[in-house]
Amino acid sequence: MYREQRKEETETAGHGFMPGLAVDAVIFGFHDQQLKVLLMQYKKTGIFALPGGFIREKENLNDAAERVVSERTALKDIYLEQFYAFGDYDRYDPKPLKTIMTANGVIPEDDHWLLQRFISVSYYALVDFTKVVPMPDRIFDGCAWYDLANIPELMQDHSLIIRKALTALRADLDNKLVAFNLMPEEFTMSELQTLYETILGKNLLRPAFQRKLLSLGILERVAKKWTGGAHKAPYLYRFISENN
Amino acid sequence: MYREQRKEETETAGHGFMPGLAVDAVIFGFHDQQLKVLLMQYKKTGIFALPGGFIREKENLNDAAERVVSERTALKDIYLEQFYAFGDYDRYDPKPLKTIMTANGVIPEDDHWLLQRFISVSYYALVDFTKVVPMPDRIFDGCAWYDLANIPELMQDHSLIIRKALTALRADLDNKLVAFNLMPEEFTMSELQTLYETILGKNLLRPAFQRKLLSLGILERVAKKWTGGAHKAPYLYRFISENN
Repeated sequence: MYREQRKEETETAGHGFMPGLAVDAVIFGFHDQQLKVLLMQYKKTGIFALPGGFIREKENLNDAAERVVSERTALKDIYLEQFYAFGDYDRYDPKPLKTIMTANGVIPEDDHWLLQRFISVSYYALVDFTKVVPMPDRIFDGCAWYDLANIPELMQDHSLIIRKALTALRADLDNKLVAFNLMPEEFTMSELQTLYETILGKNLLRPAFQRKLLSLGILERVAKKWTGGAHKAPYLYRFISENN
Repeated sequence: MYREQRKEETETAGHGFMPGLAVDAVIFGFHDQQLKVLLMQYKKTGIFALPGGFIREKENLNDAAERVVSERTALKDIYLEQFYAFGDYDRYDPKPLKTIMTANGVIPEDDHWLLQRFISVSYYALVDFTKVVPMPDRIFDGCAWYDLANIPELMQDHSLIIRKALTALRADLDNKLVAFNLMPEEFTMSELQTLYETILGKNLLRPAFQRKLLSLGILERVAKKWTGGAHKAPYLYRFISENN
């Protein structure tokens, strides 16, 4: 009881977290041929933001990011890629947080730890859309998927963070073969191509795409086929993970 | 009064820098067919480290990295790429800094700001070896180039930072065409190939390499040739920068 109260107090003061440092996550999902991003909406103010949080004093930076993403998606073992630390001085804007705190009945002092300058180490996460249950909490009254093409106005520089995350994801498509994290376990070549095309924002030639992906030796053809009855049913594939 | 006192406290605690946050730079140069890294050596202790520093309270994160690199190389407009924020808790090791401070006559309190946990936002820099004058200062008595294949034992996790910088540089070779930053203004195709081979740690086929680089439309053949008198003197090339 005492311990819980004490923990709450230190967290309110900002002690227990590393000062001036945040993690923010651009959580991508893929559904209905669209790339989606998970966004939070703060209670009472309607302000939109990326899911984010702070780093506990003895917590690994990457673990903090994982924690933030798990809290929002209720998923474990998520593919997370750290892509950039946003640290321009002019991203420092205490106004929205002050508005949010005030709307929720907390009038902060100007030197409140949440109103100081923060540098955000940002991650993108790739999740299987079908497995995610977006989780709001007592601070947020909204947590939902938004089409990448139709993102509402976001707090601070969070729109920039999303744009830069997409650039990083595109660059990693070939290098790090990250796309399968956005797919269900089994998929057709055509579904995979649609995902690549959506991420890259351009059409790809089907034979070249198929040849390239198959040449990488990371796809395994699954024995069964679709049972729709079409005379030329497509094969299903799955990724061969390193653990197999 | 309260505010002034507080400011004073902050400055003595961290001298106007953001707490818990550092920048470190892996400065690559290329000479004698070898990739080199610029390392510092602390006075009196002989401890080796990457060039690094802290972020002023109103300074952009990337500007802090530029400042650190300029201070060591006496170069301006250096190609810098932010590649990773190192933030594992177990990289926190105050011992070497305590040793260094003690050896230099400062006995720090255990809660001295320099002995707290730091997260390092790391950059790699690519510089023209021939233009760099390594600059030690009053804290360091050494600043010199070391062959990447022959790096001395480094402080904390700085060896890991170098390994990860090399991985990032390799990945960026094609995506971001960064290599020309390591070359003098004019170079032969063979010199450029040697640089790529050194970075990648493998031999490349000459016709394929030449075809690929020329197909990118970023190289311009310079009119003059070598005057060594060889009957088949190689052409000189230069990169077409975006400013041309």
